[in-house]
Order: sequence, then structure tokens, then C-alpha cells
Amino acid sequence: MKLLIGKTITDVAGITASGVSGGLKKSGKKDLCVIHSKGNPVASAVFTKNKVKAAPIVMNMEHIKNPITKVIVVNSGNANACTGKKGLEDAYTMAQLTADILGVAKEEVIIQSTGIIGVQLDMEKIDSAIKKGCENLSDQGGHDAATAMLTTDTSEKKIAVSFEIDGKEITLAGIAKGSGMVHPNMGTMLSTLVTDLNISKEMLDLAFKDSVDISYNMISVDGDTSTNDMAMVIANGLAENKKIETVGENFEKFKDILIYINTELAKLIAKDGEGATKLIEVEVKNAQTLEDARISAKSVIRSNLTKCAFFGADANWGRILCAVGYSDAEFNPNNIDISFYGEGEKIQIAEDGMGVKFDVDKAKEILLKPEVKVEIDLKDGEYSATAWGCDLTYDYVKINGAYTT
Amino acid sequence: MKLLIGKTITDVAGITASGVSGGLKKSGKKDLCVIHSKGNPVASAVFTKNKVKAAPIVMNMEHIKNPITKVIVVNSGNANACTGKKGLEDAYTMAQLTADILGVAKEEVIIQSTGIIGVQLDMEKIDSAIKKGCENLSDQGGHDAATAMLTTDTSEKKIAVSFEIDGKEITLAGIAKGSGMVHPNMGTMLSTLVTDLNISKEMLDLAFKDSVDISYNMISVDGDTSTNDMAMVIANGLAENKKIETVGENFEKFKDILIYINTELAKLIAKDGEGATKLIEVEVKNAQTLEDARISAKSVIRSNLTKCAFFGADANWGRILCAVGYSDAEFNPNNIDISFYGEGEKIQIAEDGMGVKFDVDKAKEILLKPEVKVEIDLKDGEYSATAWGCDLTYDYVKINGAYTT
Repeated sequence: MKLLIGKTITDVAGITASGVSGGLKKSGKKDLCVIHSKGNPVASAVFTKNKVKAAPIVMNMEHIKNPITKVIVVNSGNANACTGKKGLEDAYTMAQLTADILGVAKEEVIIQSTGIIGVQLDMEKIDSAIKKGCENLSDQGGHDAATAMLTTDTSEKKIAVSFEIDGKEITLAGIAKGSGMVHPNMGTMLSTLVTDLNISKEMLDLAFKDSVDISYNMISVDGDTSTNDMAMVIANGLAENKKIETVGENFEKFKDILIYINTELAKLIAKDGEGATKLIEVEVKNAQTLEDARISAKSVIRSNLTKCAFFGADANWGRILCAVGYSDAEFNPNNIDISFYGEGEKIQIAEDGMGVKFDVDKAKEILLKPEVKVEIDLKDGEYSATAWGCDLTYDYVKINGAYTT
Repeated sequence: MKLLIGKTITDVAGITASGVSGGLKKSGKKDLCVIHSKGNPVASAVFTKNKVKAAPIVMNMEHIKNPITKVIVVNSGNANACTGKKGLEDAYTMAQLTADILGVAKEEVIIQSTGIIGVQLDMEKIDSAIKKGCENLSDQGGHDAATAMLTTDTSEKKIAVSFEIDGKEITLAGIAKGSGMVHPNMGTMLSTLVTDLNISKEMLDLAFKDSVDISYNMISVDGDTSTNDMAMVIANGLAENKKIETVGENFEKFKDILIYINTELAKLIAKDGEGATKLIEVEVKNAQTLEDARISAKSVIRSNLTKCAFFGADANWGRILCAVGYSDAEFNPNNIDISFYGEGEKIQIAEDGMGVKFDVDKAKEILLKPEVKVEIDLKDGEYSATAWGCDLTYDYVKINGAYTT
């Protein structure tokens, strides 16, 4: 696998995209993107488990059942959530409008919305933004598309790789947005991957859903699971490899790459969490079961007290142990070792459930790095899991203590 | 029932107490209290469900099985948690020291600790503080005791009431501490009630455990369940009422008063959450089951985004609906009504899962009150539950972003 630096979704065969300003964001920034694929792409998607689902999510859960998915429209600035019957009609209208302009069936269109909850969409603005977005589709538009889906994000989240399957070069690229209300449960924030791989819908689904469980579903910014979360992938087959229709070597290779891509995007989202100053990675090792490893890692990454300690570069391992303790994981509290890692440096701060003497200055130095890893060794089994998150800062409170779009 | 303004635990017959400074807090503030009861009091207690249990909790879970509980020692400044075998030995030493001085059995002593995790107790300081605490026991010492158990709390938490059972006047008083790492699960922060009621240990246990479920277990400051949580009550029988030994009118009366007392102390803890500017009360009405009402109320009270919105006096009902949605409660998102209350004023902000037009200035005015109630009507059944919490502020981040004792 080769990382394609500077490349994006429109570097995948058959993909055009655009990002335009439609006046949905008060700032005048880009707020609508269209992604279109040639061919007859198959798609897989996961959606938020929140019972309060945004209107486009409700529609997408129908549309994703269609054998073919050709177009994705993302608007930021308004989540079209808690908007009742009118909101649902608007989501369908957005799909129909796009379908009419691009000459596809409306079931081939997926709509993603993000932004403020509980406000009806301005459909006049949406109408002209969709037209503009469709007119602007180009094989250079991927970067604009990545920008247009952002809300309080401070940076674009994108990645592209190439790899070989069946002697053919395949490209896979993804864009995502995150920032706040990020605590995915099966679905996630917004993330869209495109690839020219030739694969059946069933196999794409199998690979994608497995990869989401250990990437997006292992991050948390603030413990709030959004109404609009979704992650999806489309595969248009234009690379012309022999179609992947069963589990096997090619399937596993693709799945590994999907896991890599989704994990990288998930980490970008965690690192750019609202107000965050650093990325926190928590690896729980040697748990009795995979579930124990997963829930204890997520419990630590979600702990407000632990997140504040990271903001203050404070090696407060007691809060970490406490958060493992109130997760439902089975473990022996008298076995736990805890170490911090930062840019290759390591410091152990707890052993067998108790503090060890450590160099406080060195710990602080490590905790001031932009990416910090916590290793929690339960010494109780052979399962591991990793979760990602960020610190809790004044700026998180500032960003969310006032009404903004 | 009569509220006894200005009264405290030492106004209960047979109770003496003290609060002394033993040098455990760097500030020199009071940090150890002793509470002693005459007679042969029965006791009930609930303890943290965190698998990482502080040393005194482990010991107390044994001691509470003793038929009689005469003394409670509370130290602040050090939680004696994650301190291994030495920590457990120290907890037993504290009980033995106290028992020797006061001439009771060591199993009749309960030790509560709160403060920093992962640091061994300074047993020289503890030794002299316990001696000082026992020497200073007096029937005026209740207020000092309430002060000595505080950590980052900004105010004492105490309450006292009197009521009649069987023609006798009974007094019931409680003191508590909370502040951070508050998200009780069956146990709670530290809370100690004393009463002169004559009641069997079995009946006391039954009444107390029921009352904890709907008081302490319904508050959250930061979602972090402590290693040291415990709530307890002792009843020394000195009021000489006919002993309550079965469920019946007197039992129910006492239980209702316990619920009242525990709820008031829980609200004091929530209101004085670290950095909090206001008390938030969330009532979920008309849920399909009691469990649905409870988990949805707790989900809202725990939501960081909702807590930030309250800090900013922002009527962001979308975040509230979102938090109900990601709880595991069953409900119809299209049925929910949401209203805010503050000092008698009410404003409805959502109806049938959608926003309604409301006076934004009036909403802001209500949200700026020191106590705000959110009423969430699921219109889906007949069960209700109430949870309490506080807003998430710059000061919470400040308090927890640096190592303090």
C-alpha cells in the first residue's frame, strides 16, 4: 500500500466532486459538496444508533438498500435534525433535485447534513447550492468538497492510498468531518470513502462494517452521539480488477486497507475535536476479552477528569485507573500497569495498580507532545483494543457555551 | 416533618463529632472528622460499584456486616485509593487506632477517605489527627465535621429534620461532600446520616438502599464514578420509639423522609459540582418504564454539550433531544415536548420533537437563574424520574487541569 500525499477523492478513477458556498453558513464559507461517480458503484454505509435520527439519515437508510449509489451530497451549516415531516420531505427533495440535474435515480443519491439541530433548511438556498454544486463537478474538486463539509473543524480530514489487487492498481480515498458531538455508536460523524475497486455490494458491506467497529466507533470527543452520524464507502469498479465476490486474500487485503484508512480519518477527527490541543491514544492490552479491552479503552478516552488532566499535562494515572474501574470490564485492579508514550519516549507511572516513582518533569514533557499514547496493561488475558480522543479544554467550553452555526 | 435550620448531626441524641486539622491538606484546612454515637447503633451503607475500590471501601464492606456501628472517621486530602496492600493495612490501622482510643471494637468503626488517588497516607499525621479528633469529640462538633470532609467543595452540605414516630420526636441529620469525580453508581460520594430512630438493621437497610437509588444515584457532575463513593446511615435508637422491625406505616414515613434528606444532599452536591454556576434538574415524564425515565434523565444531565449550553444560558433543546436519543431509552422522537423552568417561570421550547417559536430573551433570563429545571415529556407512558447535575464551565477545566490536593 502506498500513501498518496496531497491526493484526494477526485484522484480515484471516475470520481468528480465540488465544494460551493450556498449561504447556509452565516460566515459565507463553503457549505455544500457534491461527489459523483461514473459507472455503477456499490456502496456500504453505517448510520447513527441515536434514536433521534436526522431526516437525511432516515432517507439514507432506505436509499442505501438500492444496488447502486452514484451521488453523495453533503451540506454543512444545518443538520436537518428534529425537523419533523417537513425535514424529511426536504431530504427527499434534495435527493430528487440532485437526481434530476445529474440524470440518475433519486435512490442513487445519498444526502449527508451537519450543523445546527432543530432549524428547518432554507430550501431556496439549498436548491441553488445543489445546482451550483452539480455544475461545478470536476476531477479537481475533491479538496473543495473536503472543505465544504466542515463545521467547527479546524482542518480538512482526508487521506488517499493506492494498492494492487489482481495486478490492477486500485485507489482508495476518503474525506471526513468531526469536531463536536462525537461519540460514534456504529455510525459515526460524516465520512465518505470512494474507490475504483471492483467488489460486490455484499463483500464491500462486510469489509466496511468490520472496519468501522475498530476505527470510528473507537473515538470520542465529548461522549455525545450525534443525530447525523454516518460513514460510507462507494466502489465503482473502474480499476477493472477481477470482482471481489468472496472472502479471500484480496478481500482481506482490501479490508486491512479500509481499517487503515478509517483509523487514520478517525484519528484526524479525534485530534481536531472541539477545543482540543492534543490527540490521546489509549491502548488497553492483555484483557480477558476483546469487549473488556474495548470498553475500558473507551471509558478512559471519555473520562472528563482524565481529559482535563491531559490538558494540564498532568500525569494523573489515578483518574485513568478509576475510569477503567467504572467501565464494565472484568480485570484485576492489582495487576494494572500504566505507561505514557510521546514521540518515541516512554515513561511508566503505575505498576500492579499502584503508582511507581517516576520523573515528573519527563512525564510532563511527554504529556506536552501533540500526540500522547497511554498504554494500559491489564496483565489478565490476551485481547487488545485502542481508542482515540482528545483533551477537554477551555476552548471546548467556549465553543459550546454559545449558539453558533 | 420539620426542617431544622442551622442544626446538624450533633443535634441528634447521642451523637458527638469533631473536625480537626491534621496536616493532610497542604492548605492546613480541617481534614479529619470523627463521628461517635452512644448506644448500639445499627447502620446501612452503599459503596461504589467501581471495580477499583479504595482501601477503606474494601474494609468497610466487611465492617458494615457487623451488627453495630459506633464510629465514623472521615479524612480528606488523601483517598487511600490505588495504594495496594499497604493502603489496606493503613485503613485497618486507622480503625484499630480509633477503636482503641474510644473503647469500641474495630469492626464498629467505618473509615471514609477522599482526596488524591495513588498516594500512600502519611500514617504519622493520621495517627495524631485521629487522636486529636477523638479528644475533640463534642455535641457542638457537627459543623466542624461537615467542614473537615470537604475537598474542592465550596460549601458545606448538611441537613437536619425532625419528625414523629410512635409519639416520639425523631431527629435525622446528614452531612455530605461531593464536587468532582461525581457520577455515583449505587454508592455515591461521601454522605453520612445519623438518627436517633429505633429501627432494625434490616429495615434500615431496606429504606436506605431504596432512597439512594433515586437520590445520589441520580446526580452527575462529570460522569466519573469515584473509587471512594459511599453513603451510610446509622440509627442509635435513643429516641426510644417502638422499634421499627417490619414494613408498615412508620417504615414508609421514615423512608419518605430518608428520600427527602438524601435528595436534598444530592442536590447540594450537584449544585456545588466543580466549577458549576448552577443546579440543573432534569425531569423526564411519561416514559414507558421507570428505567426509560431514569436513563434518559441521566443521559441529559451527563451530556457535555448540554452542560456547556447551560453554562452559556443557551436554549439549545436539540442537544437535549440528542442526549435522550443516545440513551438506551425507548421512546418516540416525534412525541417529545421540552420546557425550561426557573424560579416559577416556564417556557416551552420544543413540541412533538420539533422546535416551537419562543421568546429567546425570556429563555435566556430563565437559564441565567441559579436553579434551572428541564421538563422532558415523552408522552409515551406513565413513568417519571428526576436527575440533577450542573453546567460544564471554564472553572471545571481549570480545577481539573492541574494537580491539586
